[in-house]
Amino acid sequence: MKVMVIGASGTIGCSIVENLKRDHDIIRVGKHRGDLQVDLTDESSVRALFKCSGKVDAVVAATGSVHFGPLTEMTSVQFISGLQDKLMGQVRLVLNGKDYLNPGGSFTLTTGILTQHPIHTGVNATTVNAALEGFVLAAATELADLRIRINAVSPTVLTESLEKYAAFFPGFESVPACRVALAYRRSVDGVDTGKIYPVW
Amino acid sequence: MKVMVIGASGTIGCSIVENLKRDHDIIRVGKHRGDLQVDLTDESSVRALFKCSGKVDAVVAATGSVHFGPLTEMTSVQFISGLQDKLMGQVRLVLNGKDYLNPGGSFTLTTGILTQHPIHTGVNATTVNAALEGFVLAAATELADLRIRINAVSPTVLTESLEKYAAFFPGFESVPACRVALAYRRSVDGVDTGKIYPVW
Repeated sequence: MKVMVIGASGTIGCSIVENLKRDHDIIRVGKHRGDLQVDLTDESSVRALFKCSGKVDAVVAATGSVHFGPLTEMTSVQFISGLQDKLMGQVRLVLNGKDYLNPGGSFTLTTGILTQHPIHTGVNATTVNAALEGFVLAAATELADLRIRINAVSPTVLTESLEKYAAFFPGFESVPACRVALAYRRSVDGVDTGKIYPVW
Repeated sequence: MKVMVIGASGTIGCSIVENLKRDHDIIRVGKHRGDLQVDLTDESSVRALFKCSGKVDAVVAATGSVHFGPLTEMTSVQFISGLQDKLMGQVRLVLNGKDYLNPGGSFTLTTGILTQHPIHTGVNATTVNAALEGFVLAAATELADLRIRINAVSPTVLTESLEKYAAFFPGFESVPACRVALAYRRSVDGVDTGKIYPVW
């Protein structure tokens, strides 16, 4: 299969590529690196990406940032920035990419443990992740008509990122990125649609 | 208690006012009608609302629209319109209104059954409602420090709206608006925070 991995140079992205490249042809996509580049916040950039890639069998998105900060100081502009980046970035990928997926193809998006388990300063993250899980649930019902599947992986904090983020995740068990990559593999090579795979 | 009801002239809003006015002073707010007016998509309008109302004990939002349409034809602009209206409208109300709530006060937002039960053409609605439920879950943990509670009511299709919407909700049991209003009453007068009240 021809699999496009967005965010291919990130910690999770690298592990996904490492796992999938054994059996699939990978198109590595990044904001500045990789085989192709894309800015998911820019509609024309997303369109250009698919015009360049042509038809693919799977699109995996392991990218997107949100706003972290206390709710008491949060502005609407900051809140919207998370919606525009991690939420609309991945939604935009689906809205534009569905016409470039071969029948039987799939999207695999990325949410996160904060959907169900909030942390300090994480209100925007929980909102964005919850929105994406709703999107996957509902979009699956319509994409089925095109013979396209859609799922999401919801990782907890990565073992590789603990040094930087441990203070935000007190008592959370971390998982290595290679374990998270397995969930993307399940989505790409499996039969599920409308599913969220928690990895924690 | 002084209770601000946004969307007070809508079907649900009218029932909320009817229920709460027995025991509380109500400030009816609408886009064009009511004691005060607000456009929740406009930051300065929301600020002006609270400057005008002064301190209140509860804010109830029963308002917000989303984009309905098939995913195959949906544009990012249409998708964003739902985020800006029903999602950011209610988030903006909380971000600005928290400074105008008396200690012990509460926000009660409105989501909907589509969060868990998608319907045809409802991808944007499911996404927006899911986002709001995530927001409530996470915001509750931070608003607790200000002694403010936050919950949401998730109604199914209203009996009063069946004539118009029955075709979108095949086999869904409807509920009368007066039953939905009870859930807002539970949130306003109760002790819960971070809760979603499904009414279906």
